[in-house]
Amino acid sequence: MTPSRASTRTTAWTAFGGDLHLDLTGRRAAGAGVRAALEDALREAVQDGRLAPGTRLPSSRALGEDLGIARNTVVEAYGQLTAEGWLTSRQGSGTTVAERTTPRPARRAAGQPRGRRTGRFDLMPGRPDVSLFPRSAWLSAARRALATAPHEAFDYGGPLGRIELRQALTDYLARVRGVRTDPDHLLVCAGFSQGLGLLCSALRGARARSLAVEGYGLPPQREIVRAAGLTPAPLPLDGSGARTDLLHGRRDAAVLLTPAHQYPTGVALAAERRAAAVTWAREHDAYVIEDDYDGEFRYDRQPLGAMQALDPERVVYAGTAAKSLAPGLRLAWLALPDALVEPVARLKQLADTMSPVLDQLTLAELITSGTYDRHVRRSRLHYRRRRDRLVAALAERAPHVRVTGIAAGLHAVLQLPPGAPPEAELLARAEAAGLVLSGLTWHLAEPGLAPDAPPALVVGYATPPDRTFPAALDALCELLRER
Amino acid sequence: MTPSRASTRTTAWTAFGGDLHLDLTGRRAAGAGVRAALEDALREAVQDGRLAPGTRLPSSRALGEDLGIARNTVVEAYGQLTAEGWLTSRQGSGTTVAERTTPRPARRAAGQPRGRRTGRFDLMPGRPDVSLFPRSAWLSAARRALATAPHEAFDYGGPLGRIELRQALTDYLARVRGVRTDPDHLLVCAGFSQGLGLLCSALRGARARSLAVEGYGLPPQREIVRAAGLTPAPLPLDGSGARTDLLHGRRDAAVLLTPAHQYPTGVALAAERRAAAVTWAREHDAYVIEDDYDGEFRYDRQPLGAMQALDPERVVYAGTAAKSLAPGLRLAWLALPDALVEPVARLKQLADTMSPVLDQLTLAELITSGTYDRHVRRSRLHYRRRRDRLVAALAERAPHVRVTGIAAGLHAVLQLPPGAPPEAELLARAEAAGLVLSGLTWHLAEPGLAPDAPPALVVGYATPPDRTFPAALDALCELLRER
Repeated sequence: MTPSRASTRTTAWTAFGGDLHLDLTGRRAAGAGVRAALEDALREAVQDGRLAPGTRLPSSRALGEDLGIARNTVVEAYGQLTAEGWLTSRQGSGTTVAERTTPRPARRAAGQPRGRRTGRFDLMPGRPDVSLFPRSAWLSAARRALATAPHEAFDYGGPLGRIELRQALTDYLARVRGVRTDPDHLLVCAGFSQGLGLLCSALRGARARSLAVEGYGLPPQREIVRAAGLTPAPLPLDGSGARTDLLHGRRDAAVLLTPAHQYPTGVALAAERRAAAVTWAREHDAYVIEDDYDGEFRYDRQPLGAMQALDPERVVYAGTAAKSLAPGLRLAWLALPDALVEPVARLKQLADTMSPVLDQLTLAELITSGTYDRHVRRSRLHYRRRRDRLVAALAERAPHVRVTGIAAGLHAVLQLPPGAPPEAELLARAEAAGLVLSGLTWHLAEPGLAPDAPPALVVGYATPPDRTFPAALDALCELLRER
Repeated sequence: MTPSRASTRTTAWTAFGGDLHLDLTGRRAAGAGVRAALEDALREAVQDGRLAPGTRLPSSRALGEDLGIARNTVVEAYGQLTAEGWLTSRQGSGTTVAERTTPRPARRAAGQPRGRRTGRFDLMPGRPDVSLFPRSAWLSAARRALATAPHEAFDYGGPLGRIELRQALTDYLARVRGVRTDPDHLLVCAGFSQGLGLLCSALRGARARSLAVEGYGLPPQREIVRAAGLTPAPLPLDGSGARTDLLHGRRDAAVLLTPAHQYPTGVALAAERRAAAVTWAREHDAYVIEDDYDGEFRYDRQPLGAMQALDPERVVYAGTAAKSLAPGLRLAWLALPDALVEPVARLKQLADTMSPVLDQLTLAELITSGTYDRHVRRSRLHYRRRRDRLVAALAERAPHVRVTGIAAGLHAVLQLPPGAPPEAELLARAEAAGLVLSGLTWHLAEPGLAPDAPPALVVGYATPPDRTFPAALDALCELLRER
């Protein structure tokens, strides 16, 4: 990491006299002379902030050539505006916009991104430790990708995404997750949120009305389902995962599952529940959407293989780089049944033509070079240690709290005993202590679905960087200790 | 550019023994011994192609550790499968999958991307010369971006996009296109096609029913409008551009215009037509969507400034890197009126959370360092020469063909005299001669809108690389010469 380059940023563009839009035509038409028109145009550009303080103007020669007017006219206009205080001129550094000019009037700051709740300790689940992002490995892979990509890679391409990545993923997913697919059935999308939206729209286009979802899950996913015109229909959960045995006879177009590691409860879907879902899909001309969001992170044993392998024509496999690399990449992929390739690809084309190519080519390089595997292994070890520390600290300092769910992923569910303060109160206390985390109730698909569930917190142990993790753990234990 | 690294790609991941999913549990449960279960699992992985020929297997020590079984068991299983011909073992290079194993059964190649028409000479309009993409400058900017980005850049972020890029664009667009906006009103999107879809959905969400479009335009854009639930309502065109004077009284929610350089006819929208559109928008609570797809490429004079500056609360400015850098980046931006920021940002969040961050950070670096300006200037010179050569060649060898539209952009419209063969026939002849180009009629918003228009071709002179451009020009002149 080199230090910030802010000092060079502010002036670098002007080193060569960048483009500048000046409208002289209207002023000339209104009867102004060339020099007066140029002065007015420059003055206005400085006044309204288009030319920011400190900006270096083009040389009089360059601007004269650009505008098709005499260089001397530009020299005179610059001189006039310098005299008026709008510009400053120093020997050897050309003409720049004066620093004391009025700033552009501030607009109401509408449309700020919805603020993520912030606190001293960020334990919001669903996110990796972004400080692990392999910056230099990514850059090396990008260098190789840029050196070897054919020119056509930079052009418009097909909606499935770059063949290099789809080929690399075909092999990788077969090897690591047991997925059976090929490049013609893989579609690269902008995160699973886009993939889910495309799938729901494709099902809706085939007259579907509802989509079965797990009783606990991500509210934003259910919002995506609804936005596509489908009703999310919750399935209860138990210790074996979603009650897919209850699907029989239901007319949902598909069921959205997290088989490897139920989000957020952390259960692995039992073998008979997997079979029940696939059988239902076959018998009802429906689909299973397998959201394998953290399938690479299992700590106690080999992960269960993807259930897609049970029937690639009935199960859509969805994978993502959001947890293994970074959410900011917006890189995910769907392994599609044959019948869904055309409708989903058409919708992807309509949505954004295709996903951006450079990150795709870079990820393909990372995977084929083995760097991706190494990064996943390193991350797995990192998160596993985090989880072990969380479990040990709670066992020692808050033994009445039960950590539920399998040893996997980036989050844990902390069950509190009956009689503990309600979730809302715990979350308020947490916030007061600078701890940002989530409650299980927030994930409930329907308000009344689990009326008697004891309070439980959902804790993302992956999120904080190493230097704040111990303190975050302390604050959490302090919050949860018996009083 | 270094040569292709294909030779290292195929085996590199295996240098450390990558992840491999092997399900021993089921087999063990069915009564198999450890060694037999491992042999079965490996045999099946080779048979069904999950382990591709040439793949190097993990060392017996690594696999034994991963599976929690004795190393010797792995050695024995490898030996057995080598004996059966599934694996090969060579001193010093470990155990690899044998080359002669059956390939995975091929599926029907559904979902191939819609084939772009290909020929020897690609003159399809709407695309830049992708061989100009500044690969090494992009890599340098990516290096700086990766070195300086804060960790949170890799996390989920707000739907507007990275602040670094929105700040850089605010300054750049003000300077070069006269756009008046600020980072809180800029939204980064995945190409203008996504931006247009988001805008249409936002308008539809506010109960809009129709969107005025230019009489000639891109059919895929009208498809996007329709997919969002709006009816595209065509406006006639004349020599001053779209007949925005006819908007008065119409209830369209917005009008989609290409003011700097009408696509595809090449007219610049006259000042009074710009004013009429803005006045209409103000009086009817409607919007203008200004698609500034090639505003940086004007050859005969300074470009007209963006019409957004006439009223930033009524005109949405849409810019893109698709023509100035590469379509494959899928990077575009909307400068939004205050009232549209919230609904459009919400829809962006629903669609894909936000655009990928690394390309955004890299483009911000390119812009603030001045490299983007230099690249645009170089490209402008390149395309201007291309256009000059096209015009000169036609003047000499097909003088009856009229090149219409202003000297700008990446395409030209070639008008043929009345009595020339109909467009369909010309396009068929072109295809036979290996020339891929487009006809004006394809762009017509309604079949009957211009019944007496003479045949005209739309030629993208930017697309071919330098080495084939002269031959493409020859083929075009030969196609069009009087017979």
